[in-house]
Amino acid sequence: MRDVAIIGIGLTKFGELWEQSLRQLTAEAGAKAILDSGIEGKDIDAMYVGSMSAGRFVGQEHVGALVADASGFSHLHIPSTRVEGACASGGLAIREGYLSIASGINDVVVVGGVEKMMDVGGGAATETLATAADQEWESFFGATFPGLYAMIAIRHMHEYGTTKEQLAQVAVKNHKNGVNNPYAQYQSEVSLKQVMDASPVAYPLGLLDCSPVTDGAAAVVLCAADKARKFTDHPLVNIIGSGQASDTLALHARRDITTLDATVYAAKKAFSQANLAANDMNLAEVHDCFTIAEICAIEDIGFVEKGKGGRAIDDCITTIDGQIPVNTSGGLKSKGHPVGATGVAQIVEITQQLRGDAGKRQVKNARYGLAHNLGGSGATCVIHIMEAVSQ
Amino acid sequence: MRDVAIIGIGLTKFGELWEQSLRQLTAEAGAKAILDSGIEGKDIDAMYVGSMSAGRFVGQEHVGALVADASGFSHLHIPSTRVEGACASGGLAIREGYLSIASGINDVVVVGGVEKMMDVGGGAATETLATAADQEWESFFGATFPGLYAMIAIRHMHEYGTTKEQLAQVAVKNHKNGVNNPYAQYQSEVSLKQVMDASPVAYPLGLLDCSPVTDGAAAVVLCAADKARKFTDHPLVNIIGSGQASDTLALHARRDITTLDATVYAAKKAFSQANLAANDMNLAEVHDCFTIAEICAIEDIGFVEKGKGGRAIDDCITTIDGQIPVNTSGGLKSKGHPVGATGVAQIVEITQQLRGDAGKRQVKNARYGLAHNLGGSGATCVIHIMEAVSQ
Repeated sequence: MRDVAIIGIGLTKFGELWEQSLRQLTAEAGAKAILDSGIEGKDIDAMYVGSMSAGRFVGQEHVGALVADASGFSHLHIPSTRVEGACASGGLAIREGYLSIASGINDVVVVGGVEKMMDVGGGAATETLATAADQEWESFFGATFPGLYAMIAIRHMHEYGTTKEQLAQVAVKNHKNGVNNPYAQYQSEVSLKQVMDASPVAYPLGLLDCSPVTDGAAAVVLCAADKARKFTDHPLVNIIGSGQASDTLALHARRDITTLDATVYAAKKAFSQANLAANDMNLAEVHDCFTIAEICAIEDIGFVEKGKGGRAIDDCITTIDGQIPVNTSGGLKSKGHPVGATGVAQIVEITQQLRGDAGKRQVKNARYGLAHNLGGSGATCVIHIMEAVSQ
Repeated sequence: MRDVAIIGIGLTKFGELWEQSLRQLTAEAGAKAILDSGIEGKDIDAMYVGSMSAGRFVGQEHVGALVADASGFSHLHIPSTRVEGACASGGLAIREGYLSIASGINDVVVVGGVEKMMDVGGGAATETLATAADQEWESFFGATFPGLYAMIAIRHMHEYGTTKEQLAQVAVKNHKNGVNNPYAQYQSEVSLKQVMDASPVAYPLGLLDCSPVTDGAAAVVLCAADKARKFTDHPLVNIIGSGQASDTLALHARRDITTLDATVYAAKKAFSQANLAANDMNLAEVHDCFTIAEICAIEDIGFVEKGKGGRAIDDCITTIDGQIPVNTSGGLKSKGHPVGATGVAQIVEITQQLRGDAGKRQVKNARYGLAHNLGGSGATCVIHIMEAVSQ
């Protein structure tokens, strides 16, 4: 397979974007990524777009063609495909774009991710998000994602002694990182006390253990690595590993609800392809839709042993100057979580870091970065490993 | 790129399937295709699923993981991805599966398509289908697909003298074919008078010019051609061309609303890859969501000249014993149109025909077949060309 470079990145502000429509968000992120990359419309061989539920959130399906059209490319008749894997939709779009170049079929692919969630209001957003759970075993009986992740958290506390304070510290760390991300929904710190005292949502998860409802879009331009210098002078960042795996849609059917096997298998595949291991990584963006999700992710990827995720937070292993900085962007918790955009935005953050362009949240001497994007309570996982290529 | 064979096919009955859920339909079609192919679960490298709007039709997103799980493969952690391109979702899923094998990344891929449309009722189904149109230019103002295709038909009549009788004859032909398809929603003929006298929907389109609302699923097993004989003794059918293109989402922005440029460009790409032309084809399944759509399709693919589609129906060019048999399955009109399943079901029909297994609707001496799958009013098109490989 061919090497694939990320030559352009673009983000909209994440947050409550009442003045911008779905198509405006995708066009803005796409235009930024294209300008950043140096390509023109005629160079684009294909487009992929991740969106979880544009149909329910804003009443618009057919999102692939919409994005090609809204970007001003209708006259070029570019193949444009939407992919969906709940909150992993963005990561799956990256993977389809990556595979189509690695395989030699395409040279230049624009990948976008978008979700416009605010328009429907909070309750309806939670209801639509619950369509990523197993309808017949979970959603029909009133289960929502805070409830499902609360069960994971309770079991993790029972099995491994993880504490509510450790969960809360994940939120504290990620908000601290988000302060330095101008695109984040919440550029504000939260104290341990604030997180601990926040309104309960589903014990042990309080309001500040949960990622917010967010509007936003992200885009990247992928290019065959040997053609990247035709377009850009940026430091090159290559995707060197891609792994995807599935699991039962419903939580109850898993062998162990504290281990998300889709993450375990996706990580194995991605590390194997990159010929690297977890301890080679210099930073990671992981899917902290809830604070417990970050703790499970760092265990399941292999940054720490199973059960040691809570302790790792206490030991500051995952802070920006720690052994493996996690969610330097602020994560889903502070940056916001426009579900279809999240997986693409993670790739944007890792690219900025590996280019050395991350400003106040820059990780020093970063060569390898990992992005971990999860769908539902872990029925879909996609992991990408990126490398800063020396010039 | 590697040759890719279709080694297994499966269909559910198409129709009003009140007793079967989305997951049961996908599991049934998938199991049939897998049994037909001779593979086992452990042989599957990836799955792709086409579904237009499971989120709105039945309140279930995350359809890729759902299908892998419902098929009994959760323990195998197979990467499973849903793709969406409105009514072309199934064809796009075929294309992603095809590309992933042609490129050498996967050897065996199961591709499914599904839609469960009846549960929401007729008006809500029309409303959900309208999410494939351009919300800001069309759906918000009350445009639905019968209305949009009626505009195409009126213009085609004005430009080329196409008649309402010619439109009606498309329905008569496709229902005649559908009689011999045991999976079809309507295994019954309709007369020219019945179609002409049917309740008007949007002039010139009457009720019998429109494809119905349908539940159903379809699946195929794709395999690297050089490994196909490991699994199956069936006559081999290879995919030898795949083309995809996009266009403006809204109809008004096209250079000519009677020419669907996405079809024109997708056909060019597919024929170029296969090194064949329209007149090499022995049969085709085209996207007859409305009778006018079949007339535009046979023109835009190149079976007849632009403007001669109506005349071609009069001349019986597209009947089973005609020059280029079109929609031998009964087409969307008679077989039914579970939107996400349609593109996969087209591949099933062409495979049956090229295997020589199509029974009473068998086309004689068929070597090359084409499947044309369209999204919305033509903003997405995907075309595949298949060949019966001599043993």
